[in-house]
Amino acid sequence: MSSELTRALVSALDKKRVLTKASELLCYAYDATAGDEGRAPDVVVLPASTDEVARVVRIARDAGVPVYPRGAGTSLSGGAVPARGGIVLSTSQMDAVLELDPANQCAVVQPGVVIQRLNDLAAEHGLLYPPDPGSVAVATMGGSIAECAGGLRGLKYGVTKHYVTGLEVVIADGQVVRLGGKSTKNVTGYDLVGLFVGSEGTLGVITEATVRLVPAPEARATMTAAFARSGDASHTVAAIVAGNVVPATLEYIDATTLRLVEEYLHAGLPVDAAALLLIEVDGPPEAVAREAEFVERVCREHGAAVERAADDEARERLWAARRAAYPALARQSRGTIVEDATVPRSRVPEMLSAIEDIARRYDLTIATVGHAGDGNLHPTVLVDPDDAELMERAHSAVAEIFRAALDLGGTLSGEHGIGSAKAPYLVWALGEGGLDLTRRIKAALDPQGILNPGKFTA
Amino acid sequence: MSSELTRALVSALDKKRVLTKASELLCYAYDATAGDEGRAPDVVVLPASTDEVARVVRIARDAGVPVYPRGAGTSLSGGAVPARGGIVLSTSQMDAVLELDPANQCAVVQPGVVIQRLNDLAAEHGLLYPPDPGSVAVATMGGSIAECAGGLRGLKYGVTKHYVTGLEVVIADGQVVRLGGKSTKNVTGYDLVGLFVGSEGTLGVITEATVRLVPAPEARATMTAAFARSGDASHTVAAIVAGNVVPATLEYIDATTLRLVEEYLHAGLPVDAAALLLIEVDGPPEAVAREAEFVERVCREHGAAVERAADDEARERLWAARRAAYPALARQSRGTIVEDATVPRSRVPEMLSAIEDIARRYDLTIATVGHAGDGNLHPTVLVDPDDAELMERAHSAVAEIFRAALDLGGTLSGEHGIGSAKAPYLVWALGEGGLDLTRRIKAALDPQGILNPGKFTA
Repeated sequence: MSSELTRALVSALDKKRVLTKASELLCYAYDATAGDEGRAPDVVVLPASTDEVARVVRIARDAGVPVYPRGAGTSLSGGAVPARGGIVLSTSQMDAVLELDPANQCAVVQPGVVIQRLNDLAAEHGLLYPPDPGSVAVATMGGSIAECAGGLRGLKYGVTKHYVTGLEVVIADGQVVRLGGKSTKNVTGYDLVGLFVGSEGTLGVITEATVRLVPAPEARATMTAAFARSGDASHTVAAIVAGNVVPATLEYIDATTLRLVEEYLHAGLPVDAAALLLIEVDGPPEAVAREAEFVERVCREHGAAVERAADDEARERLWAARRAAYPALARQSRGTIVEDATVPRSRVPEMLSAIEDIARRYDLTIATVGHAGDGNLHPTVLVDPDDAELMERAHSAVAEIFRAALDLGGTLSGEHGIGSAKAPYLVWALGEGGLDLTRRIKAALDPQGILNPGKFTA
Repeated sequence: MSSELTRALVSALDKKRVLTKASELLCYAYDATAGDEGRAPDVVVLPASTDEVARVVRIARDAGVPVYPRGAGTSLSGGAVPARGGIVLSTSQMDAVLELDPANQCAVVQPGVVIQRLNDLAAEHGLLYPPDPGSVAVATMGGSIAECAGGLRGLKYGVTKHYVTGLEVVIADGQVVRLGGKSTKNVTGYDLVGLFVGSEGTLGVITEATVRLVPAPEARATMTAAFARSGDASHTVAAIVAGNVVPATLEYIDATTLRLVEEYLHAGLPVDAAALLLIEVDGPPEAVAREAEFVERVCREHGAAVERAADDEARERLWAARRAAYPALARQSRGTIVEDATVPRSRVPEMLSAIEDIARRYDLTIATVGHAGDGNLHPTVLVDPDDAELMERAHSAVAEIFRAALDLGGTLSGEHGIGSAKAPYLVWALGEGGLDLTRRIKAALDPQGILNPGKFTA
């Protein structure tokens, strides 16, 4: 980065909001993706307004320098990694909830707002913002919209793209464009809002978002079902959904994860089980009571030992255990590769078998947790980034996992995105035709290729 | 159309499926949009497979001739009108439900499948395909996906784009591209499925779609609330939603429509009312009972006379009356212009006042029905296509309605699309920046401009 460029950025923003010290830059070299040693950007900017974002993008455009939009850096696919040097644009200074509008059940936020904070505010009005990636306590609205984050409630509530109705974006030439608005029903031209959701910062920088909120469920019931055979757990998932009951969450936790979480948390989990389902139903109290009974009956019919959380404290303990899955796995190894290959729900048993088989063949520990209800599994490979031979085996295994998911009618990524980590495999999912469309759209909207280069199409 | 081209089409398809007689062509000259005298295409093709669609598009590409994909022709914005001559591509011969998959709560359909038929099949499994445009009994899946149709259940269930997870499309160069699949969670590259939904046939021809189904509600309750003052009706809508109750449908019917429907159907509607709300709540029986009581109480508190449908027959009578709104209006005049300007729910009272004011100033009869719950109103102007002076007044009034909706934070079109009818106004909603993005995407995916020309960007 030339000092001329740094000077332009300082004069466009403010000295305090342009970081250039090596020690500062290092903090923006990586995201939550394993196995990427990172590369420090040349400069980090912390714009405080849409206008400042536009100025930064225009400076980058004129200089032909990459811009990497960054929220909290919790991406699991290298989405926020400054792969080719240049400017990291952090949205951390743009963290205002601009409007909470209960009458229209929506909110207008700046990109740096942490998801949980929006939900805390929405809760005061009995409302909920449903998308809930595991990183909800730190991840930002901008980052989660750019990645189309999923989460635990996807089965019943859908994912981020189902809740974003309006965006303000700064596109590659520095123009500010406002798209959509507060209406869920809006068919004025191409669904540009939808195109930017999940575009991983490759088409523009999100500077404002309007999102839909829904009434929070009045009641919920949370259960665990411990199975002696893991296959019984996945058949239970199918049987619950076949009863046309749609739980808010339907989580699968395998034996490895279960034991590591228990060692870590001492939560009283059934460590002898081959698999655990963690199930929550929500809605009107009477329906919740009925659905919980149905779920428990189906679980018992499939041989499970079932326990229902007696109160909010017990419920919170269960969710804490679920959220502890990654930290518990991370404690066991120097690194983890968390994947999110997704298959149609009915193929989950086959996918679990395939993962077990792949782990055996490559002599790896692959722990699997996941959102079984929507077929979105998280096989997690325990690795050591300094062990080149192990890393190579791990990457080969991951490639086989992708192939298995696609062969079962599934997809490369359910919710973590492609980023740089899965870019080489994107053609497997899209085919040459789909990849060509992807490239054409990128070229049409960012002809210089300055926005988050190295993602999607590598 | 040169006879050479016709010969190429005949040899690619089959003589029976290439229509060239003037009397046949005339049937494809228009859609359900008023005030458009139509223009017959040069030829109509009825391909029976994806491969045949691809052949037609390649022939069109080589000849530089427009292709207009067409479902049932129920578009209300000129979406299916062959505005510039060329080939109408009807999907009527591709009407197979390829798969109904209750285990994964989804279906795979060809574009010519009528929406109601899918719903009849889904109902056998206790499932529902929620999008329900008024034309559900004749409109096709392909057409409704291309237009991102909305409908009566939008408030609670969302619109078409929330239910399409996979598409097969033939793009402008004749390539067949498969996008997405059965997974709701899928973040492999740009949301190309979402981009094609609502693209009005300007980016590709939909040849197959995978759509999500949901468990059908177990119970429902249907009510009418008759108001002496129309303002009270719209305030009631706000009060219901403020109670965090989300009805499946929340329809507003104004005094003019009410009287014309009653004259037409003799359904026993309260013709003295200034406005009627038609409200249905659905879900688990206990919740439905509670929500229906809440809705009735709120309506009465706002001065309404409330009646609940006693049984399915009474319920069906009410919905028949709602569905009769357009026919009843159409009987009164030689034509109707049905608009669908949409505003945030809280601005519905202001929008209704604006429409009344515009009708008065232009000396027009504008009847308004609409999906008040999601702010999606249908001001319907009674016109006579042969009365040029009246038509000019009507178009000026419609332009003012668009402007009023946008000024209230709304949008040009909630569910009918832009097509040719609203193309001149698209810039009002998108701004130059959004229109430029629209043009760039179109140019990137259809550089020759052969797919449904004359729509969106005129």
